[in-house]
Amino acid sequence: MSLENSHKSVGLVSKEFFTFANNAPLRLESGASLGPITVGYETMGSLNKDGTNAILITHAFSGDSHVAGYYKEDDPKPGWWDIMVGPGKPIDTDRYFVVCSNILGGCMGTTGPASTNLATGKAYGLDFPVVTIGDMVRCQKRLVDYLGIKKLLTVTGGSVGGMQVLEWAIRYPDMLVSAIPLATTTRHSALAIAFNEIGRQAIMSDPHFNKGDYYGKDKPNLGLALARMIGHVTYLSDHAMRKKFGRKLQDRETLAFDFEANFQVESYLRYQGSKFTRRFDANSFLYITKAADYYDVKHQHGNGSLMKAFAGVKAKVLVISFTSDWLYPTYQSREMVKAMKKNGLDVSFCEIEAECGHDAFLVANDRQASLMRNFIDRLGLEEGYHAF
Amino acid sequence: MSLENSHKSVGLVSKEFFTFANNAPLRLESGASLGPITVGYETMGSLNKDGTNAILITHAFSGDSHVAGYYKEDDPKPGWWDIMVGPGKPIDTDRYFVVCSNILGGCMGTTGPASTNLATGKAYGLDFPVVTIGDMVRCQKRLVDYLGIKKLLTVTGGSVGGMQVLEWAIRYPDMLVSAIPLATTTRHSALAIAFNEIGRQAIMSDPHFNKGDYYGKDKPNLGLALARMIGHVTYLSDHAMRKKFGRKLQDRETLAFDFEANFQVESYLRYQGSKFTRRFDANSFLYITKAADYYDVKHQHGNGSLMKAFAGVKAKVLVISFTSDWLYPTYQSREMVKAMKKNGLDVSFCEIEAECGHDAFLVANDRQASLMRNFIDRLGLEEGYHAF
Repeated sequence: MSLENSHKSVGLVSKEFFTFANNAPLRLESGASLGPITVGYETMGSLNKDGTNAILITHAFSGDSHVAGYYKEDDPKPGWWDIMVGPGKPIDTDRYFVVCSNILGGCMGTTGPASTNLATGKAYGLDFPVVTIGDMVRCQKRLVDYLGIKKLLTVTGGSVGGMQVLEWAIRYPDMLVSAIPLATTTRHSALAIAFNEIGRQAIMSDPHFNKGDYYGKDKPNLGLALARMIGHVTYLSDHAMRKKFGRKLQDRETLAFDFEANFQVESYLRYQGSKFTRRFDANSFLYITKAADYYDVKHQHGNGSLMKAFAGVKAKVLVISFTSDWLYPTYQSREMVKAMKKNGLDVSFCEIEAECGHDAFLVANDRQASLMRNFIDRLGLEEGYHAF
Repeated sequence: MSLENSHKSVGLVSKEFFTFANNAPLRLESGASLGPITVGYETMGSLNKDGTNAILITHAFSGDSHVAGYYKEDDPKPGWWDIMVGPGKPIDTDRYFVVCSNILGGCMGTTGPASTNLATGKAYGLDFPVVTIGDMVRCQKRLVDYLGIKKLLTVTGGSVGGMQVLEWAIRYPDMLVSAIPLATTTRHSALAIAFNEIGRQAIMSDPHFNKGDYYGKDKPNLGLALARMIGHVTYLSDHAMRKKFGRKLQDRETLAFDFEANFQVESYLRYQGSKFTRRFDANSFLYITKAADYYDVKHQHGNGSLMKAFAGVKAKVLVISFTSDWLYPTYQSREMVKAMKKNGLDVSFCEIEAECGHDAFLVANDRQASLMRNFIDRLGLEEGYHAF
């Protein structure tokens, strides 16, 4: 964990990974203090000289800073939102300076439970303090300042990324022209907390968990795989799963009458669970899901009133939900929009017809693409936007 | 596992538990053979002399033969369907002879993976053959014959119990006057298979699972508890969970910033998971969920056509689904009803407005109570019913 800032020049057109380190400890919402902090981030496009054409993208639970493009020609997959971000795409990197950073508590370059605790010289593990969505956003603010961004044309992201968008709009009203929260909620329902809790229990029940102190040893991969499988099902929909798998059998024509993966959906989940353990840290699963479960806009910012929580927001807002999202159903977006409108905010809302469940914001969708492109470009023009 | 039949007198008014043992091996759908088989069952009310006033109740996944009433005055809880079954209740034990048996593969008195394999003198464990809903029903048929029942006035049950109801109607058309499948499906969706598979993986990942050979040793209780937690969430609904728990904290006023059960819903799930391990066998979880996942009426009975599968059914059918059941949503009941109607069957269908999810059939509901009471009593009259 180097404290040197590896991003030497602002304005670089790049899909490289950088780190930004900040020595000043961050006073967390829990009361604990954390520092120094490293933030892993990527940028695309160039910042104009006034520092006003930047777009911050906030990633969802298991995402990272690699939002779009390829590092190398033979990369099997581009970044996680390549359908939306790039030259000529709805979030057009020919026009805007796009920044995406790994969240605090994550495991993709930003300080998290797998990072070295300078006080002990060992990985934090469960000594890492519980962080909140607010803490993640305050950490992003340091990066945004460091990059010389004066005002963000928009902050956008889906799911847990959408929570960060809301937090930005509330916490830094003068820093945002607009905010686009997608497939998100102002607070988790009991259902969403329940699935996260079962995932956490799966990890903490794994004998290799060892109270979070498993670095350099056997990892709680079985627990993490289970947690991922549960999450995966909640990101899909009944319809999407029927279409994708139905009752199709895996590599056979008749039932096997055993406990192997007979159905394709079983085989798929086992694969997804196992694959996830190769790229994700189980402790980060605990910390990020906990931050999402704790998030509660009306209590944290409005003393119990969602309307009050949004009272200071100045950003223009575009809220998008998806019909088949049963993790954060549309009624939750409507509540948010209603509270924003009561404050006289300039807020647009669209529920997009989509079959693929909560993950719909990650899937190519013309409606989402055109809504976001038009919204961002209109604001860019209104702000007297110029590219460089 | 005694092979003596402990139910000496048919017609006993009782809430006692009996076993019925049958030496003849059962040729299973898998091709394997299983025997001898013991069936744990309970009866209420008295069989009339013609053997025509019997009602068979088929229990859901984690149920048992203790359908209603109390064994002792100080029992904390009555049987699982006490709201529906008893003297003067919709399934009126003053009028009907009610039978409920534990399913094959279960762990509440009927032969299952925890039973002694006479070939080895040890518990079967995973040597127990994979059984199907059809096998469970053929086992129940032996009991029904043994009890001297000539024709069942109705067979009813919800969820996996509802699958058994469908199987009875298809397999023994001349044995049933009517069938009442509740909150069920003719085959699991990919979503339902997915949740079951994750539960099975949780059990099989537990280091105490030991390939199913854990009897007399430490049990895979952590895995079984996880599996139960997942199941529990799928039996509820977003609405029911919001109403019951919302974001209420457990024994505290502010967030704890740790990984204990902060929210009531977390504490509730941990409790439910742990409680389940005291009464249920992890191997039975594997076998019963597998039977449910394998069940597929149109392929097993109709060569790919649901209509053909129901072609031989003679029973009058009352199908009930519940609005908030997202595990077996109403569209699945409608498919079933449509296929029955195409065969000219006398089938009634009702989707009941209920907030509590898949478990709605287990919860007091005037609509379900009156629909079932009227349906059963009308048929009783039509059949020239007499109580004793």
